[in-house]
Amino acid sequence: MISDFHPAWLPAEAFRALGSRRVQVRGDGLLLDTVRTEVAAACRRFGGAPADTGLCDVSFAVSSQADLAPEEFTYARGEGVTVVRAADPAGLLHGFFHVVRQGERAFAGDFDERHAPALPIRLVSHWDNVDVHPVMGQVERGYAGGSIFWSAGRLREDLSRVRAYARLLAAGGINAVAINNVNVHEAEAHLLTDRIGEVAALAEQFRAYGIRVHLSVDFAAPITLGGLPTADPLDERVRAWWAQATQAVYARIPDFGGYVVKADSEGQPGPSAYARSHADGANLLAEALAPFGGVVHWRAFVYNHRQDWRDRSTDRARAAYDHFTPLDGRFAPNVILQVKHGPMDFQVREPVSPLLGAMPSTPVAVEVQATQEYTGQQRHVCYLGPMWSEVLRFPFGRPVAGLVQGMVTVANVGDDPFWTGHPLAQANLYAAARLGWNPALDPLALLDEWIALTFPGHDPALREALRAIMDESWQAYERYTAPLGVGFMVRPGHHYGPDVDGYEYTPWGTYHFADRDGIGVDRTRATGTGFTGQYPSPWRDLYESLADCPDELLLFFHHVPYAHVLRNGATVVQHIYDTHFAGVERVEAMILRWQQVSGLVDEAVAARINERLAQQLRSAEEWRDQVNTYFYRKSGVPDARGRRIY
Amino acid sequence: MISDFHPAWLPAEAFRALGSRRVQVRGDGLLLDTVRTEVAAACRRFGGAPADTGLCDVSFAVSSQADLAPEEFTYARGEGVTVVRAADPAGLLHGFFHVVRQGERAFAGDFDERHAPALPIRLVSHWDNVDVHPVMGQVERGYAGGSIFWSAGRLREDLSRVRAYARLLAAGGINAVAINNVNVHEAEAHLLTDRIGEVAALAEQFRAYGIRVHLSVDFAAPITLGGLPTADPLDERVRAWWAQATQAVYARIPDFGGYVVKADSEGQPGPSAYARSHADGANLLAEALAPFGGVVHWRAFVYNHRQDWRDRSTDRARAAYDHFTPLDGRFAPNVILQVKHGPMDFQVREPVSPLLGAMPSTPVAVEVQATQEYTGQQRHVCYLGPMWSEVLRFPFGRPVAGLVQGMVTVANVGDDPFWTGHPLAQANLYAAARLGWNPALDPLALLDEWIALTFPGHDPALREALRAIMDESWQAYERYTAPLGVGFMVRPGHHYGPDVDGYEYTPWGTYHFADRDGIGVDRTRATGTGFTGQYPSPWRDLYESLADCPDELLLFFHHVPYAHVLRNGATVVQHIYDTHFAGVERVEAMILRWQQVSGLVDEAVAARINERLAQQLRSAEEWRDQVNTYFYRKSGVPDARGRRIY
Repeated sequence: MISDFHPAWLPAEAFRALGSRRVQVRGDGLLLDTVRTEVAAACRRFGGAPADTGLCDVSFAVSSQADLAPEEFTYARGEGVTVVRAADPAGLLHGFFHVVRQGERAFAGDFDERHAPALPIRLVSHWDNVDVHPVMGQVERGYAGGSIFWSAGRLREDLSRVRAYARLLAAGGINAVAINNVNVHEAEAHLLTDRIGEVAALAEQFRAYGIRVHLSVDFAAPITLGGLPTADPLDERVRAWWAQATQAVYARIPDFGGYVVKADSEGQPGPSAYARSHADGANLLAEALAPFGGVVHWRAFVYNHRQDWRDRSTDRARAAYDHFTPLDGRFAPNVILQVKHGPMDFQVREPVSPLLGAMPSTPVAVEVQATQEYTGQQRHVCYLGPMWSEVLRFPFGRPVAGLVQGMVTVANVGDDPFWTGHPLAQANLYAAARLGWNPALDPLALLDEWIALTFPGHDPALREALRAIMDESWQAYERYTAPLGVGFMVRPGHHYGPDVDGYEYTPWGTYHFADRDGIGVDRTRATGTGFTGQYPSPWRDLYESLADCPDELLLFFHHVPYAHVLRNGATVVQHIYDTHFAGVERVEAMILRWQQVSGLVDEAVAARINERLAQQLRSAEEWRDQVNTYFYRKSGVPDARGRRIY
Repeated sequence: MISDFHPAWLPAEAFRALGSRRVQVRGDGLLLDTVRTEVAAACRRFGGAPADTGLCDVSFAVSSQADLAPEEFTYARGEGVTVVRAADPAGLLHGFFHVVRQGERAFAGDFDERHAPALPIRLVSHWDNVDVHPVMGQVERGYAGGSIFWSAGRLREDLSRVRAYARLLAAGGINAVAINNVNVHEAEAHLLTDRIGEVAALAEQFRAYGIRVHLSVDFAAPITLGGLPTADPLDERVRAWWAQATQAVYARIPDFGGYVVKADSEGQPGPSAYARSHADGANLLAEALAPFGGVVHWRAFVYNHRQDWRDRSTDRARAAYDHFTPLDGRFAPNVILQVKHGPMDFQVREPVSPLLGAMPSTPVAVEVQATQEYTGQQRHVCYLGPMWSEVLRFPFGRPVAGLVQGMVTVANVGDDPFWTGHPLAQANLYAAARLGWNPALDPLALLDEWIALTFPGHDPALREALRAIMDESWQAYERYTAPLGVGFMVRPGHHYGPDVDGYEYTPWGTYHFADRDGIGVDRTRATGTGFTGQYPSPWRDLYESLADCPDELLLFFHHVPYAHVLRNGATVVQHIYDTHFAGVERVEAMILRWQQVSGLVDEAVAARINERLAQQLRSAEEWRDQVNTYFYRKSGVPDARGRRIY
């Protein structure tokens, strides 16, 4: 499986330990064939041998074992043999990649472990358009070139890149993919019906790596595709239409995963047009999918995007909770409520969405965004593993990871030679995949894992430098952009670069309310929008309290004077200045560190990283100067350290 | 010449006085044929008669008269006969439309007048693209639908609308048109060479009404079209290429007008790439055009559009003067330096460009923008005649109209049923055309003239209402948008609607520098950018003086505290509040007035005006609230009258 594409975290070298040994694979079926093919290629390269019988160093076997869950595998070693067992082929595939990740450690000492995915749903969601959208381009919020699936409005003829991609995803533990944008435009709507063949062709690529294909669908499809006069979820003709359409999908793709739906959100159609609830809407599709084992991913990203900025009582942060908690328990079992990790929209810092802790009787998936819409658009180094880890560990009594059934990651790949634009942005896709399998993983350890796999055999100086550059790069980005959890301050539309007031007087519900005296959104119960009341204890009181609210979320929850003293001892305005200078200094340090080791990597990779770091520095300086100048002009407070503010 | 298109200021009724009489036309040639066709149509409709010989009520005749200048005509009446004479057919055509405009007045009493255009160059400039540009659309800064020339990347098959348009322009006194965007994209570049046939087809339509066609060209055409390695204006191959290309143009279009060039501006190529001056660049093209009597319109809109907002010493307002005054006297006689009326970019209020008074040895044309890029985009009523009149009358010793050779009007028409989106925006094109012929005309009288022509025979109540709505609509727009001459505060890109800080931290050089204490751009010689020094006396001192500077330009020239007291007695911030409330009230009054008379006009026209007025009110309220809130948040000063600021 050596491909022409950038190997990312599966370079040939990663297979050396396995490929130089005698490897037994027992079991049948497509995924076992995949493992055998992988083994054969590795052994060819490194001198090992597939061993069908007899003596071997490592054995992979599917055997019916009642105590093993789907996708689970055992990983044990004794008497010089490493043994991986699973009850299903998918478990064995995961076990195979586990051995690859372990390298030589898989062949040393004795151990006896079990590995099962914490979250059964681990889906990568592509916001790819078939046709290039005039505003959003081919990949909505994509920063890595065109779609790897579609080109010029049609399925690509050569799908070898898709196969290589499926392999990378599987190696991270992903088991599902949604192949089109949640904003379903006209051409994409037809994937459900007359263009289902294209979906089937993609499913064939993904199937070999145990990944089920999902489709984003248009809730109004019964009208737009079916010619019905309505898409009312309680209308019998509509139910029949979805049943028939879904049956036709499964006739072509027996392991089809299900639908992803963005309904009644940002202009997309939905059940509200018929005075029906989101539960009615979701259950309609769930009913059609249930006979085939499919699921509906129903997105909770629903809010009023035509808000009046003058109206301070409406709070976009409240919207998902207000819409969906009354419906808890009313969704069919094969509906997955897909909830963005924060209550707003993938900002560099948000509190965890209270909805994640408020739907005990509904299967929920948490949605994260690997594509760096608001976090540097893959021109900035911004390793997001730590942010997602914080979300997954956040305790609503139990941690979020214990409350949800799945993790959905918005993809950050395209037909870019390095998959992700910025080569270091690969780490985000990798970390998201791995955290879905095991949310307890330490994100820094995951970073090390990604570095070791992606740059195997390289100088330790390189690995240390990459770790130093990428660790806390999220916090660096946070420092030089919108301060203290207030969010946005980006250029409207494309969302790259600063524009402090860019969204301040718009209908999007994303405000900071800065005036000459202070800044922040009062979301308290006492005097504000009451959003803090959506949290259970202790969070409802902690966020409510000006004294207890964590600094990094202060302006998300409170409107405070510039002279307010943070828990860290600085005033708000001095903290803004300090962090913005510090953020840029951190980027300068990144660049210095990188210059010391850039000669140790492939020239093309080095050139791309060089170019991106230079962009990041320019952009960080622009952020620093615009934000500092904005607050200096507004507050009149000079920098205590006398640094240059324009 | 009754056409299917909206008749604008040439409805059939406008021809009643003429068409009900005996009309003699003497002379030969294309324009005389045009006059004869007009006369025949009018007489057919209203019962008059073309009178080739003998008794007549009105006579139009071309006769060689040494004392009549090109395009001039005499207009006299005695013994019951009205006589129009010209030395050239163009003069006679202008005289014909003069008689049409006069209606019954042309046949009453005795008079003896001469009419000659004050400005020989009266050009309407279309910013039309052949291909729809992905960002700028088909008509750059167009608010009236697609191009009347091109559709789907090709010349329209049916050019009858172009003919009707030429007739309207001629009736206003226009004698030249430029048919494509000054930003010359790839498809449009080819109009000069292999697509010249399309230009010729348009020229044929315009020729019948005495209008010469001009073409915007790509300065780099010798490279992009000619395959040369350079476009250096001093390179012999380049000179030969332009000579040959121009000769080919004239072979197809013997009365071709010339070239329009935007060079070294906003990314367009120009002579600076070869370290050559604008004079070198313009003279290159002038040399190619001179043998055929053509001219080069060389635009003076040249500035650094990659400015650093941190740098307060660079002043975009200075740029045109700084670039071009050193070159005065170095341009060939058939170069027309085309200067925007203000030093920035068609804002609702700017001082007059000092460059207009600083090029005594160069032919200059003043450029105005009928397309309402920054003045409401033809959704707002904004009659600009008074603004242009102010510019033309502005005294640099002599009035601007006495210093320039021409007036160029950026077109506001498209394939909209009413030509201009907002039906009342037709008045701007009409006024611009008429002011080019006679800059001394009173803009309010011109408004009345347009109303009387466009709504002939209507209830006087309608005419009075339209006058009340449109008169001072410019000032109304000014009141609710950017205050006191500071400009911009628009949404970046499309330039519609408010965004006070939208351009504040951008490279475009358009800043207001508002902070918690004050606002405005210090352009004084004493402490600012020195821009005031580009003006001759008395303006250099008047603008320099905080006490003498006119209120409406205060923030263009000075940075002042919010508490600064204006000449009108209000503080700056209170003036901002007052004018923004007043501006909206004025729009409300417009709507009330319109509702009283809307039933008196054609239903489609009324519906369109209703819809636009409703949009204007919403937009004006948005401007009012955003601007007031912005300054309240920044200054902390409450409205003295306690009105609602959010």
